[in-house]
Order: sequence, then C-alpha cells, then structure tokens
Amino acid sequence: MKEVTILSPATIANIVCGFDVMGFAIHQPADKIVMRLLEKKEIRIINKDGYNLPTEPEKNVFGGALLAMMREVKEEIGFEIESTKVIKPGSGIGSSAASAAGVVVGANHLLGNRFLKNELVRFAMHGEQIASQAWHADNIAPCIYGGVTLIRSNEPLDIIPLDFPPLYVTVIHPQIEVKTSYAREILPKQVSLKDAVTQWANVGGLVAGFMKQDYDLISRSLQDVLIEPVRSKLIPSFDKMKKRCLEAGALGGGISGSGPSVFMLSKDQATAKAVEEVMNEVYRKMGVEFNVYVTTVNSKGVEIVNG
Amino acid sequence: MKEVTILSPATIANIVCGFDVMGFAIHQPADKIVMRLLEKKEIRIINKDGYNLPTEPEKNVFGGALLAMMREVKEEIGFEIESTKVIKPGSGIGSSAASAAGVVVGANHLLGNRFLKNELVRFAMHGEQIASQAWHADNIAPCIYGGVTLIRSNEPLDIIPLDFPPLYVTVIHPQIEVKTSYAREILPKQVSLKDAVTQWANVGGLVAGFMKQDYDLISRSLQDVLIEPVRSKLIPSFDKMKKRCLEAGALGGGISGSGPSVFMLSKDQATAKAVEEVMNEVYRKMGVEFNVYVTTVNSKGVEIVNG
Repeated sequence: MKEVTILSPATIANIVCGFDVMGFAIHQPADKIVMRLLEKKEIRIINKDGYNLPTEPEKNVFGGALLAMMREVKEEIGFEIESTKVIKPGSGIGSSAASAAGVVVGANHLLGNRFLKNELVRFAMHGEQIASQAWHADNIAPCIYGGVTLIRSNEPLDIIPLDFPPLYVTVIHPQIEVKTSYAREILPKQVSLKDAVTQWANVGGLVAGFMKQDYDLISRSLQDVLIEPVRSKLIPSFDKMKKRCLEAGALGGGISGSGPSVFMLSKDQATAKAVEEVMNEVYRKMGVEFNVYVTTVNSKGVEIVNG
Repeated sequence: MKEVTILSPATIANIVCGFDVMGFAIHQPADKIVMRLLEKKEIRIINKDGYNLPTEPEKNVFGGALLAMMREVKEEIGFEIESTKVIKPGSGIGSSAASAAGVVVGANHLLGNRFLKNELVRFAMHGEQIASQAWHADNIAPCIYGGVTLIRSNEPLDIIPLDFPPLYVTVIHPQIEVKTSYAREILPKQVSLKDAVTQWANVGGLVAGFMKQDYDLISRSLQDVLIEPVRSKLIPSFDKMKKRCLEAGALGGGISGSGPSVFMLSKDQATAKAVEEVMNEVYRKMGVEFNVYVTTVNSKGVEIVNG
C-alpha cells in the first residue's frame, strides 16, 4: 500500500497590519500525518492524539479537504489518515489549516502530484471552512506555499509568495480560549478612512520590507491601528508583554490570527531567545498556563518526510 | 551669478488603490525652471507663462518651499526663479508638487547638494501645503525620488522607492475644474472593514507587482473599491472611457490624484497609443476640451538640465 508521512507546520496569519491578507509558516510546532492510498472511495481517520476530533469525514477538516479533492479525481480511490496533532486546536497558529493543508499535499503526492499549489489551497479551504465557518486562505496559503504569502483575493484565489530575509519567531500560546467567531464579532464593521489609509500604508511597507529584506522597514511597518486595539483586550497582559518584547529587541509582532497566541519577529536567535525570556517572565507571574516556541520562518511549508 | 535650469515632471498620485500613499513620476509634461543664487535673503519670482500665479513668496508654492529650506541655511542667500509652467494648475498631475520639488532640488544644487532627498521632500511639502492646504508627499516624493514611491508615513516622513518594470502611461486631462478640496469633501469619513481589507490586499498586490515586475499582478491589483466609485462621478464618461481603455489592452488605471486627469498604464507603446486613440474618441464626442499625453514612468524625477 502506498504510504506517505507529512509534517504540516503552524502558520501565523495577519502579520499585524495585514489583517485577512497575509501570513507565514513557521517550523515549530508541526503536525505529523501518515497517509495511505486506498483503492475505494473511503476516508478513514485514525486520531493518534488526545484531542478527540470528529472522525466522520463530513465533519472533519481532513475529510472536508480530501472530499473536495476527490470530486476532481476520476479513479476509485480513498485515504487512510493517522493523525498526530501537535498544534493545539484553538491556539491561533493555524491548527485546522495544518490539518487541511497537510492531507491535500499528502494526497497529491500519493496521486503523483497532479494538482498545482493553488488548486491544493482551494481544496484545503474546504477543510478549513468546516473548522472556521469562513472561506479564507490566510493560514492555508503559507502552509502550502511556505514562507510569507499575500492573499490578494480569496475569490478568485490570488496568492502571491513574497521574498523575505531570515527571521526568528517567538510565539507564546497562553492556554486560554478565544473563540474565532467572538474575536471576529467584536471587530468594528466600519472604520475611519484615515485609519484605513494608515493600515494600507503599513501593508505596503511590510510587503516592500519583506521583499527588500529590509529589517528596519519591516519593523516600522508592523503596526496595526484597527484590529489589535480591539482584540488585544482578549489577551491577558498583551500591551505590557509587547512593550517589553520590543524593549528586548524584537522587530515587532502582535496577535497571531485571532489569538490567543502572540508572536514576535527578531533578526537573530539571541534576540528571539531574549524575547522568549520576557514572555516567560510576564506570563509566569500571572498564573496562566502557556507554551513558548522559538522558531524561524519556514520557507518550505508542508513537507513530505517519507514516501 | 550661479544659475541652474531644472525640468520638474508631472506625477500621478494614488495609483488607483493606493489612495494617499503611492505615486509615480512621468516624463511628460514637465515644468522648466531657471534659478539663480542671490547673495541676500530674498526670493524673486518671475512668471514666464500665462497662469498669473502669485509672486509674493509667502503665498507662492516656490516661496513656501524655499523659505522652509532657507530656515536651515546659515548664509545670507536667496533665489531668483524664472518659471515656465507647462503642467496646468488644477490638472491633478502634481502641478504644485512640480513647482515645489523643482525649486528645492535646484536650490540644493546651487548650494552644493547639502541636503538629503527626504529633507528636500520635507521642504517641498511646505510649498505644496500653500497650494493644497494639506501636509502630504504623494506627488512630492515621486517628483524628487523619481520612479514609483510608497509613502508609509507623512509624519515622520517614511518614503520607500519601489522597483518597477518599464511602463507606458497615457494621461488625459479634460479641461474641467475639479477642486481638490471638493474631491476630498465628498469622500466617506467611514468605510466598511470589508472594503478596507479589499483595498489593502490590492495595495499589497500592487507593491509586490511593481517590485516583481509582474505586469499581470499590477493589472489585477489596480482596483479601487473606495475612492474611485465616489470621485469618478466628477469626471465625464469615466466608466465608459475606462472600460474601453481596458478593452484596448491597458493594464489598468484610474483617476490621477483627485482628478480631473485620468491615467492608464500599458506594457508597451503600441498599447499606450491605442489607449490614447480611445481617449480621444470618447472625449471628442463630448465637446469637452482635453489634452492627451503618451509618456513613460520617469525613474529620475526632477532633473538638472544645465548648471
């Protein structure tokens, strides 16, 4: 039986100013998925972790993504999936996107790589939709393309991979629940044109900063006048922690996706570790459980490790 | 007496989606300015065109810009300016910016190039402010830097020159009056977050498109869901003309600054000329006076032609 083992990484959507349009992949944490090609139309899901996610294909992120792909495959085929999730659901670092992106890349590999990356993104979005009830690619796109991506449009899909310089990423995941639906509900429906202009000036600056590999420009552009002021209230000690991370030398950072994880970008590993120390310090005092990762931007995205 | 002759080009602000943050310089039309260094604190303005612009330094764009520069010069110096404006005031292609940018670059040359480009932009903004009552660099920055610029912030000034591919520009200037103040008044104060996201996705796409020299991406990103729907009503037959220009092969385009000029970008000269023909056809039928220019993006900006 044809088998493949996949590592599917966490992703950070929005990147401060780029709400709903930008994201990047990181190396750690990453989910492990083993997939086997079946010779009948069936999706078998075996959870090897403790998250008890649903295993009925129609209610499951893996299933949603694979069913979308299988509609465009003529042969009688199916997949068995052994999933070991490491990216905690609800952490805000693309847990469901890693599932959806991982299985479509794995399935494509088992089928002889017949689909293009942007087709894989579209299939995976069907899976993501089951988890988030929204049609968006801000985690899926960087998970499949790797690196930093701009999603100019979700419909029709227009994904633009951006060059970027080496970047270290420190991520803290406070073990509190922030529902994506609530984090979206509290956003203003209307914003001032003035603030919107400030935001798109920074989006332009961030895109140029990545492409020019200009750390200072990246740093100056990591400002969010619209979303962060509202959502940061859901994250304990956000302002204090951010201020101290910047003092420790971080280029900038903010809420990962809709939270509760918070990320900071740094130019070098020493700074990223100093930022980790600051995050540890602020959170240890609060009595909230948390994990911190020090990692780097992942230019590969989903990876076939065996198969 | 030290003398210099300057060509100061027209500029196109906004570039469709990049309202208030982007702009580029073009080769035609351009103003001619002759400047002479005086040995006393005086600004003498001689208009050699028919526009009858004010000659009192405090009420004049040249004067406003030069006075700002002279405040940072210790010596007893002044300037005589012979101005031949070709860029019609009120045309929406940076007429006042060309005046302000031209004289500060000329003065800097006469003083042995002691100021940096971003300092020159700041001086010129004082001149631009006299004409437009606003503190902005979207025409000044590309006029002084040349090429395509992103203004990430006006205060503090943060100008980012962007790489770009060869681009032909067709500009039509209908001889109607659109007051900048009115064109700003009619804009909504509030916009939907959804539309703002669409706009900054396109700003990101346009920045990436220029830098990657990707004509298709530039074309897809030249969309404005916020400003054009409101301001285009001030320009006769805008929608019809735009539609026909796109059919003729233009990459895209829209209102230049706050209008009434309209520009279109093309990949090659033949297309830019076909676009010119379309503009001619649409406007000839309307009985509105107009000029059309076919030119290219100007990577130099203000140029010293003699001195």
